[in-house]
Amino acid sequence: MDFSYSEKVLDLKKKVNTFMEEHVYPNEKVYQDQLNQQKTRWSDIPPIMEELKKKAKKAGLWNLFLPESEYGAGLTNLEYAPVCEIMGRSVIGPEAFNCSAPDTGNMEVLARYGSEKQKKEWLEPLLAGEIRSCFSMTEPDVASSDATNISTSIVRDGDEYVINGTKWWSSGAGDPRCKIAIVMGKTDTSAPRHEQQSMILVPLDTPGVKIKRMLPVFGYDDAPHGHAEIEYNNVRVPVENMLWDEGKGFAIAQGRLGPGRIHHCMRLIGLAERALEDICKRIQVRKAFGKKLSEHEVIQEWIADSRIEIEQARLLTLKAAYMMDTVGNKVAKKEIAMIKVVAPNMALKVLDRAIQVFGAAGVSDDFTLAYHWANARTLRIADGPDEVHRRQIARLEMKNYQ
Amino acid sequence: MDFSYSEKVLDLKKKVNTFMEEHVYPNEKVYQDQLNQQKTRWSDIPPIMEELKKKAKKAGLWNLFLPESEYGAGLTNLEYAPVCEIMGRSVIGPEAFNCSAPDTGNMEVLARYGSEKQKKEWLEPLLAGEIRSCFSMTEPDVASSDATNISTSIVRDGDEYVINGTKWWSSGAGDPRCKIAIVMGKTDTSAPRHEQQSMILVPLDTPGVKIKRMLPVFGYDDAPHGHAEIEYNNVRVPVENMLWDEGKGFAIAQGRLGPGRIHHCMRLIGLAERALEDICKRIQVRKAFGKKLSEHEVIQEWIADSRIEIEQARLLTLKAAYMMDTVGNKVAKKEIAMIKVVAPNMALKVLDRAIQVFGAAGVSDDFTLAYHWANARTLRIADGPDEVHRRQIARLEMKNYQ
Amino acid sequence: MDFSYSEKVLDLKKKVNTFMEEHVYPNEKVYQDQLNQQKTRWSDIPPIMEELKKKAKKAGLWNLFLPESEYGAGLTNLEYAPVCEIMGRSVIGPEAFNCSAPDTGNMEVLARYGSEKQKKEWLEPLLAGEIRSCFSMTEPDVASSDATNISTSIVRDGDEYVINGTKWWSSGAGDPRCKIAIVMGKTDTSAPRHEQQSMILVPLDTPGVKIKRMLPVFGYDDAPHGHAEIEYNNVRVPVENMLWDEGKGFAIAQGRLGPGRIHHCMRLIGLAERALEDICKRIQVRKAFGKKLSEHEVIQEWIADSRIEIEQARLLTLKAAYMMDTVGNKVAKKEIAMIKVVAPNMALKVLDRAIQVFGAAGVSDDFTLAYHWANARTLRIADGPDEVHRRQIARLEMKNYQ
Amino acid sequence: MDFSYSEKVLDLKKKVNTFMEEHVYPNEKVYQDQLNQQKTRWSDIPPIMEELKKKAKKAGLWNLFLPESEYGAGLTNLEYAPVCEIMGRSVIGPEAFNCSAPDTGNMEVLARYGSEKQKKEWLEPLLAGEIRSCFSMTEPDVASSDATNISTSIVRDGDEYVINGTKWWSSGAGDPRCKIAIVMGKTDTSAPRHEQQSMILVPLDTPGVKIKRMLPVFGYDDAPHGHAEIEYNNVRVPVENMLWDEGKGFAIAQGRLGPGRIHHCMRLIGLAERALEDICKRIQVRKAFGKKLSEHEVIQEWIADSRIEIEQARLLTLKAAYMMDTVGNKVAKKEIAMIKVVAPNMALKVLDRAIQVFGAAGVSDDFTLAYHWANARTLRIADGPDEVHRRQIARLEMKNYQ
Repeated sequence: MDFSYSEKVLDLKKKVNTFMEEHVYPNEKVYQDQLNQQKTRWSDIPPIMEELKKKAKKAGLWNLFLPESEYGAGLTNLEYAPVCEIMGRSVIGPEAFNCSAPDTGNMEVLARYGSEKQKKEWLEPLLAGEIRSCFSMTEPDVASSDATNISTSIVRDGDEYVINGTKWWSSGAGDPRCKIAIVMGKTDTSAPRHEQQSMILVPLDTPGVKIKRMLPVFGYDDAPHGHAEIEYNNVRVPVENMLWDEGKGFAIAQGRLGPGRIHHCMRLIGLAERALEDICKRIQVRKAFGKKLSEHEVIQEWIADSRIEIEQARLLTLKAAYMMDTVGNKVAKKEIAMIKVVAPNMALKVLDRAIQVFGAAGVSDDFTLAYHWANARTLRIADGPDEVHRRQIARLEMKNYQ
Repeated sequence: MDFSYSEKVLDLKKKVNTFMEEHVYPNEKVYQDQLNQQKTRWSDIPPIMEELKKKAKKAGLWNLFLPESEYGAGLTNLEYAPVCEIMGRSVIGPEAFNCSAPDTGNMEVLARYGSEKQKKEWLEPLLAGEIRSCFSMTEPDVASSDATNISTSIVRDGDEYVINGTKWWSSGAGDPRCKIAIVMGKTDTSAPRHEQQSMILVPLDTPGVKIKRMLPVFGYDDAPHGHAEIEYNNVRVPVENMLWDEGKGFAIAQGRLGPGRIHHCMRLIGLAERALEDICKRIQVRKAFGKKLSEHEVIQEWIADSRIEIEQARLLTLKAAYMMDTVGNKVAKKEIAMIKVVAPNMALKVLDRAIQVFGAAGVSDDFTLAYHWANARTLRIADGPDEVHRRQIARLEMKNYQ
Repeated sequence: MDFSYSEKVLDLKKKVNTFMEEHVYPNEKVYQDQLNQQKTRWSDIPPIMEELKKKAKKAGLWNLFLPESEYGAGLTNLEYAPVCEIMGRSVIGPEAFNCSAPDTGNMEVLARYGSEKQKKEWLEPLLAGEIRSCFSMTEPDVASSDATNISTSIVRDGDEYVINGTKWWSSGAGDPRCKIAIVMGKTDTSAPRHEQQSMILVPLDTPGVKIKRMLPVFGYDDAPHGHAEIEYNNVRVPVENMLWDEGKGFAIAQGRLGPGRIHHCMRLIGLAERALEDICKRIQVRKAFGKKLSEHEVIQEWIADSRIEIEQARLLTLKAAYMMDTVGNKVAKKEIAMIKVVAPNMALKVLDRAIQVFGAAGVSDDFTLAYHWANARTLRIADGPDEVHRRQIARLEMKNYQ
Repeated sequence: MDFSYSEKVLDLKKKVNTFMEEHVYPNEKVYQDQLNQQKTRWSDIPPIMEELKKKAKKAGLWNLFLPESEYGAGLTNLEYAPVCEIMGRSVIGPEAFNCSAPDTGNMEVLARYGSEKQKKEWLEPLLAGEIRSCFSMTEPDVASSDATNISTSIVRDGDEYVINGTKWWSSGAGDPRCKIAIVMGKTDTSAPRHEQQSMILVPLDTPGVKIKRMLPVFGYDDAPHGHAEIEYNNVRVPVENMLWDEGKGFAIAQGRLGPGRIHHCMRLIGLAERALEDICKRIQVRKAFGKKLSEHEVIQEWIADSRIEIEQARLLTLKAAYMMDTVGNKVAKKEIAMIKVVAPNMALKVLDRAIQVFGAAGVSDDFTLAYHWANARTLRIADGPDEVHRRQIARLEMKNYQ
C-alpha cells in the first residue's frame, strides 16, 4: 500500500494547482456574475466556463479521471486522488477539467459497458466536453436508498424499449448542453431481486421525456446544472440503446457507483481543506474580546479537530483507491462504503466550524462555505444514505465471524 | 416554578392551533406561489399575508408577545411560550399574528425605552401591523459577536445626529413595508467600554440610507423580508430619535436581546416538533429493505433522541421564561444564554435527522425541512454565537466559587 | 406542572444538605479507611455507617423515599427529587438515610404487593435499617435486557416452590446484613409472554442458595455491598413467599422499576452537580501555560455544557416525577424511559470532563470522580440498556401516528 | 509513503500472532490467578510471565521496539506498528515480548542519550528483561500537563546531585523488579523556560527514595506494576547519573515521548480491534426481542462506526510512524500529536460500544473490556492531555498562515 506519488502525479498536482490559482479561483465570481446576467439562470452557460475548458484541454489537464483506459489519462484511482482533490476545492473546478459528476460516472459506464456505437455517439462528445449527461435513477415515490424499490418500467416492444416512470434528482439535466440520460428501470419484475433492473440510454429530446421542474438544494438552484424531475411517458428508444444487457442494471450500478463515490470523496476532501485554510486566514485578522480570533482556544480546538478529521478521511480514501486499483471495485466495497460515510460527514463538520468562525458571512454567498456545506449535505444521501452504507460495512465485517 | 397553563393560555393555545390548521399551513404554498408570481420576489407582499393578518386580528390573536404591557396581550413569557411555539411551526406563522422577528424585539424596545413621540410614530403602526422594522447592529468589517467592536459612529451636530457606517444582516429591510431601523453605533469612544454605544431610530427613507444588497442564507433569499447590507452615509436624524439616552445602547441591547432570544427558542421548539411529526408520518408509508421505515431501529433511535432533546429544550425554555417573569431578564441571563445555545442546536439535530429520513426530498423545497434548517443554523450565530454564550454561562457559574 | 418546592420540602432539603455537610462528606474517607482495616472488605460494615444511620433517624431524615404510604415520609416523587439528589452526591449518602438501592425498590415492592406476613417479616426490618436485601433478576446466560429471556424456573411442589437458576448482578448480596432476595423466574412457560414470570421471596440462608462470587465494576469491588453471582439450586421456599401472585412478575417489575429508575436519575444529577462544583473549585488554584485553568476557554466550554446538561436532565426528571405522581407510573413510562437514557449519559459526560480537568488525579481514588463514573456507566445498562429505552420511547411516539 | 509490509514484517506479524494465540491469550487468566494467589498482589511476579518471556526470547520475538539500533530488532516505526498492535491486544502481551511501557521509552532514552556507563548498568539488564524501570515526571501539586510547571529540584552539590520533590504516576514502580527511575526536575530555574529541566537516573534503593502509595486507576491497582507516588527527600546520586547534560530534560522528554506515544497508539489499535472481534462474536449467540443481536440495526451501526474509526486511526498512526522514520520525530510532531488525540478516543468509543453489547458482563472482569477501557482513559491524560495536543496541532497548522 504505497501512497507516495510518482513524478507524473506530482507534476500533475502542480499543474492543476497552478491552473486553479491562475484560472479557476479568480473566475468563481465571474462565473456567478455571468450566470446572473443571462436571460435566465438556465438559458445559457457562462462563457467563462468554455474558456476555462479550452485552457485546461490545451494544458493537457483533461479527462484525468478515467483509470487505465484508452480514453483517459491512464491514472489509477490512487494517482487521480490528489489531483481530483484539488479540482474539488472550487465549485467550478471539476467541470473546467471535464471531470465533473455525473459525467465522469456516465463516461466510465460507457467506456466499460457501452457498445462501439454507443461509445461513438455519446462517449466521444462527452470526452470532448461538447455535451453533458445525466443519471436517472432516484424516484420520488419510493425509498430509492433501496435500489430494488425502483419502479420505472422498461418494456421491450419489437425493436424498441418503452420507458415509463418518474425520476428526480437527475442532476445536470438543467444544462442546455445535456443531451443524454442513463435511465435505470425494471425490464423483468419476475427475475431474481438484483437482475430485474436494466440501464438504458435515452436522448433527452426523445418524445415523452418531460423535464417537470428543477429541485433546489437548501435554496440553491445549482443552475445551470440543476437537479431535474423528469417524467418518462411512453418514451421509445431503439433496442441498441440498452447498456450491456437486460438485467445488468444493478451490476452496472455497482460498477458505476464505486468510482463515482470515491470521486465525490476526493472532492469533499479538497473543499474541506480549503475551508480549513479559510479559517486559518480569517482568524489572523479578526479580533474579539481583546484578542485575535486565532488566540481563542475554542477556535484552536476546531482547527485541530479539522486537521485530524481531514487527514484521516484522506488516508482512508487513498486506501480505498489503492484497493480499487489492486483488488477491484467489488472486493473494495467495504472500503468504498467506509469513505462514502466518512468524507461527507467530515466535510460537513469542517465546513460547519468554518461557518461558525465566519459568523453571518459564513451562511451568505460572500464565501463558498454555505454552498459547499449544502453540497456536502446531499452526499450523505446521494449514492446511498449513510445508514445503508453502515449496514453494508457491518454485514461485511460480521461475515468474518459467521 | 409552575409550568401548568392557565385556562386563558390553554384557550389561546387551542385557538392558535386551530388558526394554524385552518389558515396557515394550507397557505404556505400559496404564499410561495404568490411570491414567485410577483414582478420580483422583493416588489410586493403576497396578498395572502395581509388576509391572514386580518383574520388573526379579528380572532384576537394579535400582538401576543408583549409581556405585561398596555400594548400587548398581557401574557407573561411563560404564558407566551406555548403559543409562540405553535406559531413557530410555520415560516409564515409568526407574521400572521404580528409576532415575528425583528419586529417583536423592536416593539419591545420602543415600549420600554421609547419616548411618547417615538411610540406614537413607530410603535403604534408596528402594533397595528401597518409597517415593519429592522435592527441594524451587525457590521461586516468587525467580529460583531463582541458588541464592543461596533464601529458605526453617531455624532451629535446641533439638533441632529449624523450616522456613518455599514451594517449588514439588517433582517426585514427588504420588505416594502419596512419603514424604520433601530441603529446601534458609538456616540462616545472615550466612555467606558459598555457606555460608548447608543441606539437611534433611523427612518429608512432618510437621505444617506442605502440598501446595498440582500444577503442569502444557504441559497435562500428570504424574500420579501431579506437580510440587507445597509450603508449609512452621513445620515442625519433629529436628536429626539435617540433611544432612551446616549450611551444606553448596550443596556438596551441586553434588554432587547433577552426576549428576542427566547422567542427564537420557542419558535425553534415548534419547528423541531413539526419535523418530528413529519418523520413519524413519513416512515409509516415508505419501505426499504423489506420493512417499513418505521420498523428500522436506526430511525427509531432518531425519533427517541429527538423526543428527548425537544422535551429538554422546552423545559429549559420554560424555566428561562419563568425566571424572566419573576426575577427579570438580567438575573435570568444565564438561563437565557443556556437556551440560546440549546434550542438552535437541538432544532438542527432534529431537522438533520428529518432530512435524512426524507432523503433527497428533505433537502428540496417540497418540505419545509431544509429551509427551517438554514434558518436554525443562523441562530447559532445571530444574537451572539454559541461560543460567546457558553463563555458567559461559564463565567456566571464560576462566580459562585471565586 | 408546578416544580416549586413547598415549605416542607425546602426544609427537608436544608436539613439533608446540612446533614451531608456535617456528617456525610467528612466521613467518606473514614468509611473507606474502616473498610480497609476490617478483616476483609466483606466481613463487616464500617461502624461509621451505623452511626450515620442513627443520627439520620434521630434527625427525622429516614425512609424519605416511600411516596404516599403509611410507612414512609409521604413525599411525592416530585418532592423527593431534590432531597434524593442531595443524598446522591456521596457514595455513602443514600444508605445513611436508608434510601439506597436496591432496598428502596424492594421496600416499595413489599409495601405495594406484599402480604401482611411478608411485610411484617421483611418490610419492617428493612424500614428499620436492620437488614438489607437484594434483587435477583439478571442472568449471565441470556440477554437480560429482554426480560422475557429469563430462564430461572420456579416450580410449585406441594406447599413449596422450587427455584433453579443462576443470577448475577444481585447487588447488595455481599453485605453481611443482607437477608432476603426478591427472585424473578418463570412459573409457567406456556403462559402469554408477559405472564410467565413471577417474583418470589428467598431468604439468603435457604439451603441451595450459593453466592458464587462478587463481580467487580471497572475494578471496584463495591464492598461490602457487592454484586453477586448467585446459584439457586433446588431452593425450596413456602408458597406464601410468592409476591402478589403467580404470573405477576412482569407487572411487579414494571411497577418496581419506575421508582427505582427515577431514584437513580435523581442521584446521578446530584453527583454530576458535585463534579461540576469540583471542576469550578479546582480550576481556581491550578495554572497551566501562563494562566489559571479557569481562564482556559476550553475548560469554560466544559463548564457551560455541563451546566446546560445538568439543568436539562433535572427538569426532565422533575417532569417525569410530576407525571408519576399525577398520572401514574404506567402512563409516565415514556418520561421514565427518557430520563433513564438522559441522566446516566449526562452524568458520564460531566464526570468525564471533571476527570480531564483533574488529570491523573481524576482517575485515582483521591477524588470520587472515577468511582462515580464507573457507577454511572453501569446505569446505561442496569434496569434496561439505553437501546431498549430508546426503542420504547420511539414506539410510544410513533403510536400517535398509526 | 509506502504502507506495504516487507516479507520480514509479514513474517514477524505471523509469528507474534501465533505466539499470542498459543501462549498469551490462554494465560491471561492464569496470570490473574497467580497474582491473586500471591502473598499480596505486590509481593511477587506471577511465574507465568517469566515463562512467557523466556519463550518469546527463544522465538526471537524480543525487544522489537527499538528502531535502527544495535540493541534492537532494527525495525523502523512503520515496521514495528503492526507487530506492536498485535502485542497490545492483551494486557500481558507487551511485557512478554519485553516491549512494555514505560521500559521501552526508558530504554530508548538510554540508548540515545545514555553514557556508556549508564548503558552498561541500566540499559543492558533492561534489554535482557532482568530489571524494570519507571519514569518520574508528573507531580501531584502542579498541573503537569504544562511541563514547565514541574517543581522537583535537582541541585548539584560537589560530585553529587541532590533531588527533592514528590512525583506520582511513576508507573511500574510497584514491580519488585523495578530498579531504576528516570527523574525529571529543575537544575536551573533561572535558565530559559525549556532549559531549566534535567533528567537524572535514580536507583530506587537510594536513601531518601520513598514509595508512599500506589494509585488506583478506576478501581484497578494494576499490580504488580502499579502507579506510585514517590517522595524524593534529599536523594543523592553521583553526577554521572545525569542524562545527556544539565538543561536537556525538556529536549529528552520531547525525544522520549514521540516513540512512547506512538507505541501507546499502536497498542490501542490492537485492543480496539480485539474489542470489535469480541462484539462480532458475542452477537452471533445472544438473542433479544426475537432476533439475534447481530440482526439489530443499532448494533450494526456500532460495528460499522468501530471499523471506520479503527481503520482511520491505524492509517494515521502508520503515517506518523512513516514520518518519524523519514523526517524525524521533531518534524513529525504534528502527526504524533494527532494520533495521540485520535487513538485513545477511538479506543474508548469502540470499547464503550463493546461494553454496551456485553451488558453487565462488559463492566466486570469476565472480559478485558472494562480494564482496557480504564487503561485507554488514562491515555487521554498521560503523556499530555488531549487539550494540550490539540493546542499544539492548531499552532503548527496556523503557522502556515502567519
